[in-house]
Amino acid sequence: MTVFTDEQKIKYLQDIVQIKTVNDNEEEAANYLAGLLKEYGIDSYGVKYDEGRVSLVADVKGQEEGKLLVLSGHTDVVSEGDPFYWTYDPYAAEIHDGKMYGRGVNDMKAGLMALVLAMIELKEEGADFNGTIRLAATVGEEIGMYGSKQLSEEGHLDGADGFLIAEPSGQGTIIYAHKGSLQYEIHAQGQSAHSSMPEVGIDALQLMVDYINNSNEKFAEAFAKGTNEDLGDTINVNTVINGGAQINSVAEKVIMKANARTIPEVDNQVVLDQINAAIEEVNATSKGELSLNILQNNYFATSPDDNPLIEALVNANENPEAVSRETIGGATDASNFSRISDEYDLAIYGPGDMSVAHVVDEYVEVQEYLDFVDIYKQAIKDYLKV
Amino acid sequence: MTVFTDEQKIKYLQDIVQIKTVNDNEEEAANYLAGLLKEYGIDSYGVKYDEGRVSLVADVKGQEEGKLLVLSGHTDVVSEGDPFYWTYDPYAAEIHDGKMYGRGVNDMKAGLMALVLAMIELKEEGADFNGTIRLAATVGEEIGMYGSKQLSEEGHLDGADGFLIAEPSGQGTIIYAHKGSLQYEIHAQGQSAHSSMPEVGIDALQLMVDYINNSNEKFAEAFAKGTNEDLGDTINVNTVINGGAQINSVAEKVIMKANARTIPEVDNQVVLDQINAAIEEVNATSKGELSLNILQNNYFATSPDDNPLIEALVNANENPEAVSRETIGGATDASNFSRISDEYDLAIYGPGDMSVAHVVDEYVEVQEYLDFVDIYKQAIKDYLKV
Repeated sequence: MTVFTDEQKIKYLQDIVQIKTVNDNEEEAANYLAGLLKEYGIDSYGVKYDEGRVSLVADVKGQEEGKLLVLSGHTDVVSEGDPFYWTYDPYAAEIHDGKMYGRGVNDMKAGLMALVLAMIELKEEGADFNGTIRLAATVGEEIGMYGSKQLSEEGHLDGADGFLIAEPSGQGTIIYAHKGSLQYEIHAQGQSAHSSMPEVGIDALQLMVDYINNSNEKFAEAFAKGTNEDLGDTINVNTVINGGAQINSVAEKVIMKANARTIPEVDNQVVLDQINAAIEEVNATSKGELSLNILQNNYFATSPDDNPLIEALVNANENPEAVSRETIGGATDASNFSRISDEYDLAIYGPGDMSVAHVVDEYVEVQEYLDFVDIYKQAIKDYLKV
Repeated sequence: MTVFTDEQKIKYLQDIVQIKTVNDNEEEAANYLAGLLKEYGIDSYGVKYDEGRVSLVADVKGQEEGKLLVLSGHTDVVSEGDPFYWTYDPYAAEIHDGKMYGRGVNDMKAGLMALVLAMIELKEEGADFNGTIRLAATVGEEIGMYGSKQLSEEGHLDGADGFLIAEPSGQGTIIYAHKGSLQYEIHAQGQSAHSSMPEVGIDALQLMVDYINNSNEKFAEAFAKGTNEDLGDTINVNTVINGGAQINSVAEKVIMKANARTIPEVDNQVVLDQINAAIEEVNATSKGELSLNILQNNYFATSPDDNPLIEALVNANENPEAVSRETIGGATDASNFSRISDEYDLAIYGPGDMSVAHVVDEYVEVQEYLDFVDIYKQAIKDYLKV
């Protein structure tokens, strides 16, 4: 038994892709989903992050008490860039040769809509399960992960046993863990002077080099203290550097961006401790001043690769052996969800190829999207079985 | 006896300031000077550097053979920037409260015109002197010192005994030596990769840091080998750094600009040798590639602070004791002239305050400009006295 025809499922996805939510305006998408849920008797409530930015929470209850499974997808998308480069209008959700094109269709409105439709169908079908299915449609995942942070901190997901995040992994790959990601800037403040008289200035470029040398030593020592068998080592990469105004002036200011990827054994705070220690040591011996600006501090998320949610999703495939269990370097909303409890079942699994996210001509295979509705339904029933 | 009235002298300066020569179009200024010289029977010839860019050379001969004194000024100016910030039109040469305003009036059309007028007046007056007064009005001093390089290399100034360069020092300060200036870029070429997988990329930022560490050691050792009693030490400052595209990508390319200031004892080639050795050593141990791009390679210019040309100019002042003899960090066309011979009399001395060069509302005191015509005349006669 199914509640929706394929045409309906496709139409709903087109509708939500056509709502432009570039790191803003998620309220319109939340309202759309709330309306759809309401049609099938499912109440929901919004959690306002900012003007026009609302995350959505909705529950479907099973027969008896049981586990709490959170189904999550973010409603924001990244910018489409210059539409000139797109073959089709990035917000038209046109279908050509079995692919639906549009900004965010892959990352991750197809996954989110498949979760919502699975939830509705399970309710309409009166499916047998215990516990609670909770939708958490989040704002601002692409920049800052604001929605998942707010929902986690304000208690909306308390007691969750499992998190199913419908990020585009593709049907053949399921993710059970990912590293944390710490993004930060180091500012080196010096004082300008003509390059013929550097002694009257303070060289911010050399100050930054002193910091890099000092922190590199500290990172090497601290990062050697632990390895995660799934995720490998914590690493740090200094990625972007800009500073100095002109060739004949001592640099007054240099800013460096950096990105650390963390594991539970050597976590974000360990990285921050090394940075702060390096800054303190270099500042103590310089007239200039180094400072730290944290841009994003997303934790790792880890779970066994055979946790019950992973098993349920893998087994919902016609050919379970064809699904590989993997980890990824990038962070997801699970970074915030994972901080709610020490133990949880995590699965990141959704329609679409990860490599198509954020690019021009982003698309999802329509059939894969439709298949995922059924995979989700079966896996949810399995995970919450009576 | 004077040939020109003050009004004429002022008018000539206004004329040449009104010819816009922002690192180009110097031919128009050269033609203007050639016409003025021709009116008084002085032949000149142009030395073409490029389309629209011509340096000018002209001689006035004394009674008998004698020394060759080169009078030099550059005809190019730096950009006026945004005229919005100027109180007066930067190319109108308006006079307010005894100051003439305009781009290049200070650096260094007032000095150049004072030299030209002094030369004409000496000829018209039939002044007593031996040897040759040679005007060398150069193109492109502000960027690349192209004119002085060409005139020197092509032999137009061969046999010169003295160089009087009318850069704005102000009447109270005369310059007898300056450091060389080597401006260059270091390019670090790596390979981009996602910051979660730095091992598949080549980190251009760390490559640059390795270069800085290596070269700093070499500079410290090499620069300690000599000090000039007038100019001090050779120094190097890394001044501008830019690289990396985004926070979550290993930097593919980092470019650093740097400026070394050199003395005869530790000259430009010594600096270049250290740079090349550092590049070679770091490249040998890295998958990335460092390379050097020389932007400007201007040599120092040195002369005793009591050389006959300095003495003649100081003594041409009403109060010689009030003129201080100094060195500067910046380079002038003397960087090229000085390579013609091992020994020469150098004086850098002209109307205008050095601090007013290159700024908005650049100006020269009209009276100082007029005074310099007389100072030059007297000093030239003294230096080339029978």
